[in-house]
Amino acid sequence: MVITNQGVRIVFENNQTCYTPQEELFTRIERLQGHLLTAGMQAALIVQNADLFYFSGTCQDAHLLIPARGEPLLMVRKNYERALEESALDKIIAVQSYKDIGRSIAGSLKNRGGIGLELDVLPANLFFRYKKMLEPLEIIDVSGAIREIRMIKSPYEIECMKECIRVTSEMYNEVPNLLKEGMTEIELSSRLELLMRVKGNQGNPRLRAFNQEAPPHVLSGRNSAYPSFFDGPTGGAGLSPAFPQGPGFKTIGRNEPILVDFSAVINGYVVDHTRIFSIGPLSDKLVEAHNTALEIKRRFIQEIKPGANGKDFYDMAVNMAEKAGLSSHFMGSGVHFVGHGLGLELDELPVIAKNHHVTLQSGMVLALEPKFVFPGEGTVGVEDTFVLTESGLEQLNMLDDSIKIL
Amino acid sequence: MVITNQGVRIVFENNQTCYTPQEELFTRIERLQGHLLTAGMQAALIVQNADLFYFSGTCQDAHLLIPARGEPLLMVRKNYERALEESALDKIIAVQSYKDIGRSIAGSLKNRGGIGLELDVLPANLFFRYKKMLEPLEIIDVSGAIREIRMIKSPYEIECMKECIRVTSEMYNEVPNLLKEGMTEIELSSRLELLMRVKGNQGNPRLRAFNQEAPPHVLSGRNSAYPSFFDGPTGGAGLSPAFPQGPGFKTIGRNEPILVDFSAVINGYVVDHTRIFSIGPLSDKLVEAHNTALEIKRRFIQEIKPGANGKDFYDMAVNMAEKAGLSSHFMGSGVHFVGHGLGLELDELPVIAKNHHVTLQSGMVLALEPKFVFPGEGTVGVEDTFVLTESGLEQLNMLDDSIKIL
Repeated sequence: MVITNQGVRIVFENNQTCYTPQEELFTRIERLQGHLLTAGMQAALIVQNADLFYFSGTCQDAHLLIPARGEPLLMVRKNYERALEESALDKIIAVQSYKDIGRSIAGSLKNRGGIGLELDVLPANLFFRYKKMLEPLEIIDVSGAIREIRMIKSPYEIECMKECIRVTSEMYNEVPNLLKEGMTEIELSSRLELLMRVKGNQGNPRLRAFNQEAPPHVLSGRNSAYPSFFDGPTGGAGLSPAFPQGPGFKTIGRNEPILVDFSAVINGYVVDHTRIFSIGPLSDKLVEAHNTALEIKRRFIQEIKPGANGKDFYDMAVNMAEKAGLSSHFMGSGVHFVGHGLGLELDELPVIAKNHHVTLQSGMVLALEPKFVFPGEGTVGVEDTFVLTESGLEQLNMLDDSIKIL
Repeated sequence: MVITNQGVRIVFENNQTCYTPQEELFTRIERLQGHLLTAGMQAALIVQNADLFYFSGTCQDAHLLIPARGEPLLMVRKNYERALEESALDKIIAVQSYKDIGRSIAGSLKNRGGIGLELDVLPANLFFRYKKMLEPLEIIDVSGAIREIRMIKSPYEIECMKECIRVTSEMYNEVPNLLKEGMTEIELSSRLELLMRVKGNQGNPRLRAFNQEAPPHVLSGRNSAYPSFFDGPTGGAGLSPAFPQGPGFKTIGRNEPILVDFSAVINGYVVDHTRIFSIGPLSDKLVEAHNTALEIKRRFIQEIKPGANGKDFYDMAVNMAEKAGLSSHFMGSGVHFVGHGLGLELDELPVIAKNHHVTLQSGMVLALEPKFVFPGEGTVGVEDTFVLTESGLEQLNMLDDSIKIL
């Protein structure tokens, strides 16, 4: 896929790099403007890198002012020339300081009314600085609206995510060739990371939640059932108490589940999969639990449609786990979701979770991950990224989802 | 180096993992308590992962309450058992919710006075939540004090950083074996990353500043002089507009500087180096600029002592660049520093920068990086991590700093 921003010089030397098309940016901005008008706000000021990239096509050090009506203004501190190349917006100016930004905003807006900031990610001290800079405007949290807009992916974004699927699938197909008994988790992970990195993987995905980090979950046996601070079913020992998540120095043995749960991040977009490998067969208990996870996945594919309530599918999965006598193992201790949105960040909306009402919509991209965690033994199950269309879930990858026994 | 926390079960299977010793934690906490007493605050509440690890030895999902007098209380949401293993603090309790945390804090503190939060990193919405939870206590920013405490490293921390130097130096020594004409920057970077990753590199270093990211700067020729949003002399093309920093798909050619500027992160600690490589000789202009950078480094080593003002060394470097006719190339356009602190984060205090008065102290660890940026051609120069002792700067690595011509 080569998508260029017409009239803009392409400086990257591979043919996978894509500039976000102007029409795409305008559609996104109009959706936010619709929200601003409904909420009676006069503008939003976007600064966080994923949001900034989404609405402007660049994540240089910049502030994007989106008025409720009219043209957005991108104010770039560093690097202005690159922002000009990367962004298809029309009004792009260079600024030196917060004073410049304040002046430009004051020149664009009325002296009263509300202005939206991303209060879920903006550090408190920056919030105080913006508050002072924007006085007497009232600051309103616009992060909920931004996250709801970003939740619905365009065909362009789904194409971006398919590129990501392609690179990630190649990695999964190489696992059987690289996995050897006696190697450490970190060695297997490193070698898998290399495969995707040379193809343009930018590294660990961006996360919106404070303090969260998402290293590859390449975990074996008991470590795949070792919980961590991460809000997910698996954690892993990690490399040290300073980084207590993901692969560690445990050696990979026979007859234990080897969980591979990570993905490339290409052109900003991430997908999410899990597949289970094993050197020699696993116990019947683990195999049956894996099969239950696959049944849950099949039922998701049959039943999830636009208009349905996300909560019902969490309940459905819990009921199926219960019938299989596995409810205490479902998703691990204290984890009450079975799916999540993703895109430019790993932790996007919606969440398919306990007691969480959400109307599913066409254009949502979901990672659904029914898993069963057996402390001391390991985790089995599956994760795939789906796009929800009018006719139902479309699985983006073509990977076999059974346990791969080597 | 094997440092264990007596009486605590070791679950990691390599012998490099270290638990922060209790005495080390107590000394750090006492320094913060000294600040709280002086400032008339009754406590600090620590939540950010690097700070939490520094003061408690764990970065599970937890809140650490440090009262101005008496024993700290670690309240752990997820994972409690791991926090018990990792932290050498005595009072560690499990909590389920913010309500639990609020109750525990209310039970520990007087109903009035100030409480310190990390307002430089805490998202605004979390700040509002804590404000409500802590009412009627007054919330005060304690991040400045925390950063000043963390700025002075203990002998234990310097040992940790030396482990990091060891792994990083092995990687630098392999560059001549891996570097080939015609390979892409991202391929060279990937292969170098693999070497450190299998030895326990946790990935890109943590950064404190909002929106900043630090992928490896493995950059060649003009890309090594291509600025980005990153607050440093080099940027790099990156992989796409969504990730416009670090190595890209440019192929590495002959007679251009190849800059390698990255480091392992081991047991939470990062160091920072830059070395220049080249396939075939570089122009006299670039070689002379590199030699000027080395002269600046030698003068730093001769003259930086505890008690001196950091600003003077920025000025000294600028003057030396000017005498060499290189002032417009020094550190690249719009970048006005030549050194920075580092440890658990890459962007620690102090900063050696223009007009920035700071008294240098024994125990500081500094990355000093005199560099010259030639747009369209490349960047040359050097970066090393030093510890400042009573007798002056001690360079932590033993790497040759001349341009390595292959």
